[in-house]
Amino acid sequence: MNKAVVLLSGGLDSATTAAIAIAEGYQVIALSFRYGQRHYKELEAAKKIAEALGIQEHFVIDVSLSQWGGSSLTDESIDIPQDGIEPDIIPSTYVPGRNTVFIAIALSLAEAKNAQAIYLGINAVDYSGYPDCRPEYLQAYQQLANLSSKAGIEGNTPQLIAPLVKDSKADIVRRALKLNVPIADTWSCYQGEEIPCGLCDSCRIRDRALLEVGRVDLTSAVFLNSNCQ
Amino acid sequence: MNKAVVLLSGGLDSATTAAIAIAEGYQVIALSFRYGQRHYKELEAAKKIAEALGIQEHFVIDVSLSQWGGSSLTDESIDIPQDGIEPDIIPSTYVPGRNTVFIAIALSLAEAKNAQAIYLGINAVDYSGYPDCRPEYLQAYQQLANLSSKAGIEGNTPQLIAPLVKDSKADIVRRALKLNVPIADTWSCYQGEEIPCGLCDSCRIRDRALLEVGRVDLTSAVFLNSNCQ
Repeated sequence: MNKAVVLLSGGLDSATTAAIAIAEGYQVIALSFRYGQRHYKELEAAKKIAEALGIQEHFVIDVSLSQWGGSSLTDESIDIPQDGIEPDIIPSTYVPGRNTVFIAIALSLAEAKNAQAIYLGINAVDYSGYPDCRPEYLQAYQQLANLSSKAGIEGNTPQLIAPLVKDSKADIVRRALKLNVPIADTWSCYQGEEIPCGLCDSCRIRDRALLEVGRVDLTSAVFLNSNCQ
Repeated sequence: MNKAVVLLSGGLDSATTAAIAIAEGYQVIALSFRYGQRHYKELEAAKKIAEALGIQEHFVIDVSLSQWGGSSLTDESIDIPQDGIEPDIIPSTYVPGRNTVFIAIALSLAEAKNAQAIYLGINAVDYSGYPDCRPEYLQAYQQLANLSSKAGIEGNTPQLIAPLVKDSKADIVRRALKLNVPIADTWSCYQGEEIPCGLCDSCRIRDRALLEVGRVDLTSAVFLNSNCQ
């Protein structure tokens, strides 16, 4: 059985991506990160999802990007924006180098485990404009991967696969529902509070999509009671 | 004063690279890794070198690549080769994804600290044939860096600089001596023992170069007493 490493943050996109990799016949190795994120409770969600999807191997790696901050997700002194997405502006929730670090560690794991693929929940449609979510970024990373490894020299570089990269968030919700992803167990909110804030970009994008596909029951209470809809 | 992140392993090459970055006028931020390496005592050397060179900021990051092994440097059940370098074979000391992970974390730090450059001690002449030490690998990484970051979009991507990439090891020793790098404080041996083993690839390459430039006093005792010369 072919193996795939899946970056599993605990959010909706990565959970759906893991379900897609399984549906496509891979034995999935999940990989999550404790990087100093404010919303580290997403890791509890990642654990639940891995269990729900029957994933046997799940690595949680410490890599403290919060030592130098530079993002409202890793530096508590910077507030998470709550006023909605501003077009053409990269928000303060952007974490310098995060995806580059995560994919690098996934490449290490994939090569050590002889995995053929790395599945990523990256999305470049309903997203916050992060540069490291764009298709051209992934293409450049594949080029690097081909040159970086012993596996690459032998022609066995793991392929970077981003099945959701061109989907709208509503499309992602539809795919999640079809694949029986436990959406209620996923965690997308940038705040690490008891319940989702309903106001950060991540909550807004998620809740609007859930509303669009008629699953108002899965949206956050704050979102429902606010004017964000 | 422009800032540069320098990957400082504690070995001869990275110490020399740090000295070069300083000589070229940068305020250096050193970055070292505890990645599950057998020879973690190189981190003591990194600390000494940072102090000797007057580097004020030194981050040591944990990222446990030994969780999945795949290398004799991170898996104690695989012996370090001691019989000399075999041409055209990537040895078991190759750590899957290591440089890709280290440079990714350096990019994160550089972006958060507004550093203009990342200096790397990578060398593709007297080395062990690792794929992630070649100039084409670095070029591909620069392409990725340009696309990956907010800094890149703004045209301020940190430049990856590998001043030793085309030098012979003897050339590196000469540069180190000229820049007053405390060579005796650097640690290159892959074994993490009390004294350098003198037999691993790293010891052999280093000791031969020291001998070549007439600094027999700095070679390892085992090397001197063996037939490796």
